[in-house]
Amino acid sequence: MSDISALQAKVAAAKAALAEAQAELHIAQGRTPGVSPLAPAGFPELPAIDGVRIATGEAGVKYKNRTDVMLAVAQAGSSLAGVFTRSATRSANVRDCQAKLAGVALDQPIAILVNSGNSNAFTGERGEKDVHELCMECASVVHTVPGNVFTSSTGVIGQPLPADRIIAKMPDLVAGLAPGGFDIAARAIMTTDTYAKGASRKITLSGQTVTINGIAKGSGMIAPDMATMLVYIFTDARITPALLQAAVSACNGRSFNRITVDSDTSTSDTLLAIATNQNGPEITDENDSRFIDFAECLEGVMLDLAHQVVRDGEGATKFVSVTVTGAATPNEAQTAALAIANSPLVKTAIAGEDPNWGRIVMAIGKAGVQAERDLITIHFGDILVAENGWVSPDYREEDGAAYFKQENLDIRVDLGLGTGEVTVWTCDLTHEYISINADYRS
Amino acid sequence: MSDISALQAKVAAAKAALAEAQAELHIAQGRTPGVSPLAPAGFPELPAIDGVRIATGEAGVKYKNRTDVMLAVAQAGSSLAGVFTRSATRSANVRDCQAKLAGVALDQPIAILVNSGNSNAFTGERGEKDVHELCMECASVVHTVPGNVFTSSTGVIGQPLPADRIIAKMPDLVAGLAPGGFDIAARAIMTTDTYAKGASRKITLSGQTVTINGIAKGSGMIAPDMATMLVYIFTDARITPALLQAAVSACNGRSFNRITVDSDTSTSDTLLAIATNQNGPEITDENDSRFIDFAECLEGVMLDLAHQVVRDGEGATKFVSVTVTGAATPNEAQTAALAIANSPLVKTAIAGEDPNWGRIVMAIGKAGVQAERDLITIHFGDILVAENGWVSPDYREEDGAAYFKQENLDIRVDLGLGTGEVTVWTCDLTHEYISINADYRS
Repeated sequence: MSDISALQAKVAAAKAALAEAQAELHIAQGRTPGVSPLAPAGFPELPAIDGVRIATGEAGVKYKNRTDVMLAVAQAGSSLAGVFTRSATRSANVRDCQAKLAGVALDQPIAILVNSGNSNAFTGERGEKDVHELCMECASVVHTVPGNVFTSSTGVIGQPLPADRIIAKMPDLVAGLAPGGFDIAARAIMTTDTYAKGASRKITLSGQTVTINGIAKGSGMIAPDMATMLVYIFTDARITPALLQAAVSACNGRSFNRITVDSDTSTSDTLLAIATNQNGPEITDENDSRFIDFAECLEGVMLDLAHQVVRDGEGATKFVSVTVTGAATPNEAQTAALAIANSPLVKTAIAGEDPNWGRIVMAIGKAGVQAERDLITIHFGDILVAENGWVSPDYREEDGAAYFKQENLDIRVDLGLGTGEVTVWTCDLTHEYISINADYRS
Repeated sequence: MSDISALQAKVAAAKAALAEAQAELHIAQGRTPGVSPLAPAGFPELPAIDGVRIATGEAGVKYKNRTDVMLAVAQAGSSLAGVFTRSATRSANVRDCQAKLAGVALDQPIAILVNSGNSNAFTGERGEKDVHELCMECASVVHTVPGNVFTSSTGVIGQPLPADRIIAKMPDLVAGLAPGGFDIAARAIMTTDTYAKGASRKITLSGQTVTINGIAKGSGMIAPDMATMLVYIFTDARITPALLQAAVSACNGRSFNRITVDSDTSTSDTLLAIATNQNGPEITDENDSRFIDFAECLEGVMLDLAHQVVRDGEGATKFVSVTVTGAATPNEAQTAALAIANSPLVKTAIAGEDPNWGRIVMAIGKAGVQAERDLITIHFGDILVAENGWVSPDYREEDGAAYFKQENLDIRVDLGLGTGEVTVWTCDLTHEYISINADYRS
């Protein structure tokens, strides 16, 4: 038995030596240890949004020596929209947000209060009571009605939220509210994220400039077709709540609902968008070309954030676009693309830089969509890999292998049946994903 | 750059040292290196089946210095049944078997010819031609009709099958046909399997003993709800093809269709069952109690093999039963159980021996089935973990942690809604799964 203990110690030492060697290599390769190799160069410039003030604080919900609570307040007269997870076990916060969305008092300020480190999901009646108390306290200090306070909690599931610690920080948070601060907000809401995520676009509507800012968190438990992760969008545009909701819902379908890290859907997914109605022309008609322009700009912000979430996918080393065209229907395109993007065998092949296109064929086959072997075409980027029911006579394995060494991969499948098409985004499945998730709570 | 090469070499050396230390530890722990820690003690005793002869050979399809081709011949007068993958990209062999099943000439011998190392899937018209040639050649040497030859191929997808190498071995195979040999057959059909899989049961019907033997292969690309892996069942029972098919289909729904290793469904899944009609009473009526007894015995063989496949799941260190009761319908029970069993976050938590029941809540929530937070009950074995929408007041984290150190885990969820229930079986998701699949082809 002591022999086994000694050998276990030897294994632990070998693991530590490997981690050290890998860290040394990453530094030599110019990577920041502990940060996704797919991370953007830095946090982008997010200008202040007229009518929005932000503060962050250290409430000690779970993490020590870092900010873990964020408060954003939009002034009276703002429009609000949101989309939420459809999980049957969604958190008390999500249920509270959903219940309040339609009844916001537009003549009062709107507050968003977010904590990281605890998701307040599956915490029974206590979870609902905690959300209620947070909303009452927050409304009181920011001078609005409780129905205008929207909360999100993200982190471990099933543990009681120490709401008192957040409530104790409320006076400091209110005192610290200031314009701008999207970077510190993005950092305060992180959990297993390795970098803060932000995006900003400006658009000119009828000669007037409006800005759309967004921040997001998300790295694991990321799957589409329900809703999103935590995402907060702020714009100074003048747009009605109904039109803002229409734009957000449409853009969500084309951005966050098309990404997947691990096929697991969070109990906390929340996207809230606020328009402070401070700048630009008034947008009140969905046929107005300025609405189309605004929605396009919004989609750019949301797609940027969605891609950043995938690029921070737990353990990710590759950013992968999967495009399916020629499907019988758009839904079948999405089903086939997600079957490929979620397949553990496809994702591990990508991690191993192995152009194993047979696994893509397997994933198409299991998806349950219409497919005929001899009509399927597969490309890696511009490289034709398979057609007419078999590998292409021009395909050379070394071309596929060289392509798979790239950081960004583009897998394209045409089913040759109809006009359904979609692109979804995912990452690879690596040892690091296992390391992160085999002992997340310890 | 040479600095990076040196560091890469250092990482490679550290990986090798870790693998060596782990192998040493495994030997000290009594494990056989390279064999699943969940493997049974050995291959069970499978008696000869009257009317069945088996041979294996080394055709060099892909592997060297091991058997990779298996021929089984059942004498004229046998009954045949089968179930197959529903993959849209299933192999040429599977399509050929499906086309032939109904038209078998019962007054002629039936041959099953299997190779490992190449799946002959997505190999275009060439794949169909190869199957045709194998069947013609095999029929000629075993003196039957080509319609009675059933082939399976398992291994890499998309590469041409070297059928000539198998055909060259046919005379040796036929010369070597002998009673028994189920153990060598089980070894010849292995790919990434770490042990050969067999099961045998005897049953007395009207005072007469019949035997049911089965062999299987499978380790990765294992998902239920389509069909199976490669499984061959042989019995000497007297049973009509129609009743044999009824028993096989029903048992398949309760065994192979309830296991998952990685949610990926193979293009080659095939189960063939042969009854040589040599022993026992004649079973011709599905209401005959002897049919019920036979089917129960068959289910025992198939469930044993199905569990062996899970226990050889790529990288597996835990064997996990997931039972869902109280679902609104049986289908919803299956959907919820598979959502838990396929969740990467649940499976990595199990690998890390982390009783992270919040992830089970998450998986229930994403499954898309009816669920109400406050009606859900979760048990680990006999330990009550969660009820009334929250962790149970009696649950102690250290009890869950101790339970999760066991090799066999029993996760039970009651949804509190209806009478739908099911048990499915899976394994954990480990570093070893990534190692096996990130460079399978190299």
